Amino acid sequence: MSSPAPRPASRFPVPELKDLPADIRERIVAVQEKSGFVPNVFLALAHRPAEFRAFFAYHDALMEKEGGLTKGEREMIVVATSGLNQCQYCVVAHGAILRIREKNPLIADQVATNFRKADITPRQRAMLEFAAKVALRAYEVGEADFAALRGHGFSDEDAWDIGAIAAFFALSNRMANLTDMRPNDEFYLMGRTPRK
Amino acid sequence: MSSPAPRPASRFPVPELKDLPADIRERIVAVQEKSGFVPNVFLALAHRPAEFRAFFAYHDALMEKEGGLTKGEREMIVVATSGLNQCQYCVVAHGAILRIREKNPLIADQVATNFRKADITPRQRAMLEFAAKVALRAYEVGEADFAALRGHGFSDEDAWDIGAIAAFFALSNRMANLTDMRPNDEFYLMGRTPRK
Amino acid sequence: MSSPAPRPASRFPVPELKDLPADIRERIVAVQEKSGFVPNVFLALAHRPAEFRAFFAYHDALMEKEGGLTKGEREMIVVATSGLNQCQYCVVAHGAILRIREKNPLIADQVATNFRKADITPRQRAMLEFAAKVALRAYEVGEADFAALRGHGFSDEDAWDIGAIAAFFALSNRMANLTDMRPNDEFYLMGRTPRK
Amino acid sequence: MSSPAPRPASRFPVPELKDLPADIRERIVAVQEKSGFVPNVFLALAHRPAEFRAFFAYHDALMEKEGGLTKGEREMIVVATSGLNQCQYCVVAHGAILRIREKNPLIADQVATNFRKADITPRQRAMLEFAAKVALRAYEVGEADFAALRGHGFSDEDAWDIGAIAAFFALSNRMANLTDMRPNDEFYLMGRTPRK
Amino acid sequence: MSSPAPRPASRFPVPELKDLPADIRERIVAVQEKSGFVPNVFLALAHRPAEFRAFFAYHDALMEKEGGLTKGEREMIVVATSGLNQCQYCVVAHGAILRIREKNPLIADQVATNFRKADITPRQRAMLEFAAKVALRAYEVGEADFAALRGHGFSDEDAWDIGAIAAFFALSNRMANLTDMRPNDEFYLMGRTPRK
Amino acid sequence: MSSPAPRPASRFPVPELKDLPADIRERIVAVQEKSGFVPNVFLALAHRPAEFRAFFAYHDALMEKEGGLTKGEREMIVVATSGLNQCQYCVVAHGAILRIREKNPLIADQVATNFRKADITPRQRAMLEFAAKVALRAYEVGEADFAALRGHGFSDEDAWDIGAIAAFFALSNRMANLTDMRPNDEFYLMGRTPRK
Repeated sequence: MSSPAPRPASRFPVPELKDLPADIRERIVAVQEKSGFVPNVFLALAHRPAEFRAFFAYHDALMEKEGGLTKGEREMIVVATSGLNQCQYCVVAHGAILRIREKNPLIADQVATNFRKADITPRQRAMLEFAAKVALRAYEVGEADFAALRGHGFSDEDAWDIGAIAAFFALSNRMANLTDMRPNDEFYLMGRTPRK
Repeated sequence: MSSPAPRPASRFPVPELKDLPADIRERIVAVQEKSGFVPNVFLALAHRPAEFRAFFAYHDALMEKEGGLTKGEREMIVVATSGLNQCQYCVVAHGAILRIREKNPLIADQVATNFRKADITPRQRAMLEFAAKVALRAYEVGEADFAALRGHGFSDEDAWDIGAIAAFFALSNRMANLTDMRPNDEFYLMGRTPRK
Repeated sequence: MSSPAPRPASRFPVPELKDLPADIRERIVAVQEKSGFVPNVFLALAHRPAEFRAFFAYHDALMEKEGGLTKGEREMIVVATSGLNQCQYCVVAHGAILRIREKNPLIADQVATNFRKADITPRQRAMLEFAAKVALRAYEVGEADFAALRGHGFSDEDAWDIGAIAAFFALSNRMANLTDMRPNDEFYLMGRTPRK
Repeated sequence: MSSPAPRPASRFPVPELKDLPADIRERIVAVQEKSGFVPNVFLALAHRPAEFRAFFAYHDALMEKEGGLTKGEREMIVVATSGLNQCQYCVVAHGAILRIREKNPLIADQVATNFRKADITPRQRAMLEFAAKVALRAYEVGEADFAALRGHGFSDEDAWDIGAIAAFFALSNRMANLTDMRPNDEFYLMGRTPRK
Repeated sequence: MSSPAPRPASRFPVPELKDLPADIRERIVAVQEKSGFVPNVFLALAHRPAEFRAFFAYHDALMEKEGGLTKGEREMIVVATSGLNQCQYCVVAHGAILRIREKNPLIADQVATNFRKADITPRQRAMLEFAAKVALRAYEVGEADFAALRGHGFSDEDAWDIGAIAAFFALSNRMANLTDMRPNDEFYLMGRTPRK
Repeated sequence: MSSPAPRPASRFPVPELKDLPADIRERIVAVQEKSGFVPNVFLALAHRPAEFRAFFAYHDALMEKEGGLTKGEREMIVVATSGLNQCQYCVVAHGAILRIREKNPLIADQVATNFRKADITPRQRAMLEFAAKVALRAYEVGEADFAALRGHGFSDEDAWDIGAIAAFFALSNRMANLTDMRPNDEFYLMGRTPRK
């Protein structure tokens, strides 16, 4: 039995590049030049330019800042919480980024399915426990959770970073599930062969 | 037994107005002049200026746009999903705004506790059912949920609005619980006496 | 869009005072004289006189007895567990009583939404953790939970009080949701201005 | 390995009959004469005479009244919801009563474990679906649930009965788990051989 | 109102003994000769001979082997996890075996409803806590859970036994619920009178 | 930060091939010759030869039989339910097999994360809804679920297959999480480039 035709990038209308405001078009073109394709999250969210701008400003503020977490660790938080939220787009797209950042072709599938069984350090495991609690039961987060992070050498600013990334992808995962956002075919194979 | 001292605005450092970037200070001063006080969400998030800017840009894009939902209905979505997420700051602060927008001193407590029992229209009830599903089980949202909204006269653009507001407050509620954000005392009494 | 007409006190028939047995009528008249109105729980439950008598006898046995818990603390238990059970009537009505008992206009909304973030003492927080466990997972309550209460100076008789109040409002919350019991308009504003 | 000594009737002090108020002692003696033993719920709750009186008045108002449900059906509701609430005392004690009322030695174990697979009528199955919803998610009970009962010939007064029994045993199950109430050995074998 | 006719052994076709492969027929006849009746699990699963053979080979490998757990303790694990999985067939059938193995007419109903309140040793309680975690949240099982078992004198081989029995009955309980497997009437009364 | 050393195949002792019973060694050698490596599930379960034999006999009876489901569809059931059970070994290993069976490099990650958003047919979606219900809430499976499958052309024998595969992997997923079974590195890249 043959598979059905792939879904479009979004269940909502997807704008053409030429119809977009210049700043959005430029951001998309820059991503395309760097990656070789336009990730569907850009096309799906461009349907709403004001929300697009805020979304990516927020994303960059959390994912590209300096701080106590490596870029790879930030992606671990994204992939682990997106797995718990059953968000296909974010698991596939950020899984690719995580593999590349960590130069580890196995890490994304491990973290997405069950971070407790991943080949990560105890410190990273504690980081993901905190992130998972923010993702699933943030109303129970309290002093004991911050203390547990401190026990692994995380500062309270690191705790903000961990929690804020989990919180931002609580939004992002819900937008992807709302819009039926489809991961681009390109992501699946990225970073799956170890770097030399 | 006397109550303990009230918590501060946030468990993280709260900046002084004079130390903030000009654009953030100006936004805060404008809110203060309009409302008579500075809601703690501005102080708590100003600890991270880049995140502050993105957060409020996103908020305004969803809550102040034109569209098929009234401003009161948008606040209903905020209050209902924040109740489900056990977010004290958002229930208290947006409850105040909801009472004012709807000129209804009872609506916020009704919607926050159990929207299924609130004095709202069947159309608004369907709107909140959709929002609650995005808040709690977005991975199950599908065509049948959009069809249910259409049956109440909502367009698919309205569905985006409903879902996106629920998604944005999934982020906001988690940030408030992460930072122990405290609702200002002023919110509790706002809008509790009917407008003449 | 105007709000729909408010719901009646109950989805079941509400008796007229003159048709009620004398003892029930007298209790209701006494409440009316003291409060200035008849809380809808009296009207909704008077539909079944025998159940009415048992309900209020049980209520009084728990809420008006002497013991290690203040009357305000008992109301905290009611409001916290009713919030977890999404019971609009009990959150609104007992929220009013809690504000009055504690002379604190903020406490009810804090406790109803997320007791872990309320301006209460660590002892009261432990009390509400125990009550929440009885409300949601009583089958897991065991020796460790009693020991935690003892660590905050509660006797085992206090533990019975805490657990029994949570258990009684497990009943009460279900009756309110079953009957669509509507909180009276009067409750919403009671106790919202601080006592001098 | 031999089993440990059986637990006492309650983790709280159990009064001696001679020390109880006359009305409570008389009720207990009457039960003892009829049943041949004193069910532990009487001893455990007699620790608090005012609560004892209200509890049994409520119990009798619901379980011994006239109405559209047979006494056996009322016990089905008790056993099904007590199973969902993991309440050992009520499953064992009311399981015995259910077997006797229905003259069916199999019914209690079936209903306690999974009422959907029990040898009951479709009407009784609908009754237990309603009761289970009141027990576990009363905040979602609404018009559609009442309509489903009407489709099986239940009146709205019957719906009150079903819901109120589930609500009362929400209380009762929590008290039993709070007090570690132990089912008497006598219950286990009662009604297990079919009546001739 | 009379009860409906009892359900058949399975919602799927039940083969006649004479139509079964010889090895399966022999096993069934042997059970029948020992027990006096054919437990319905044999008839229901015989619909698929290859699955039947694997199922009982697995069952015997876990339940009849030597090791640190008594046969009664193995049945406790079956009954406790089958109760949590709401599996009527396994609670009733293995409840009977548990009563016989432990020579204790009360143990099965206690463990099936709430193992935390059963008359068992602290060691057995720890065993059932581990089994319940494997049954309900196996993805969270980790080193701390093994350490807790070791603290009660269990070896890691015992931990495998406990977890594997819980895992096998995760399968068995699902097959029983899938096939509407009906417990034989004979099980209900077995082992209910103490052995002399 | 470098990743920690990879976990071993199992937290339990892993036997050497030469020490295994002949039939088990032969099966493992056959797999090794066909696949080029020994999947860790064979090594981890060989610690218990009797359980090993029953496990693979059961697996083969379900996964290699004739019937209304394609081999690819059977793997979809494995991957979807293993994702819901957060089982890393089964998602990674059976994800590889699913990609190969379906000649589709994208399908496994889609189905593992959220089968409702996968590029599959409505009939396959219905199949996975049934499987997910067996995996998570088998006690609620009933006639309506079988009827839904029939509406998509599945026979009741197909329903047994779907449910039995979900049930067998309820066991398998729990064994993998119990033993900390580690997916072999080889699985991650298998089937990720489309067949010509």
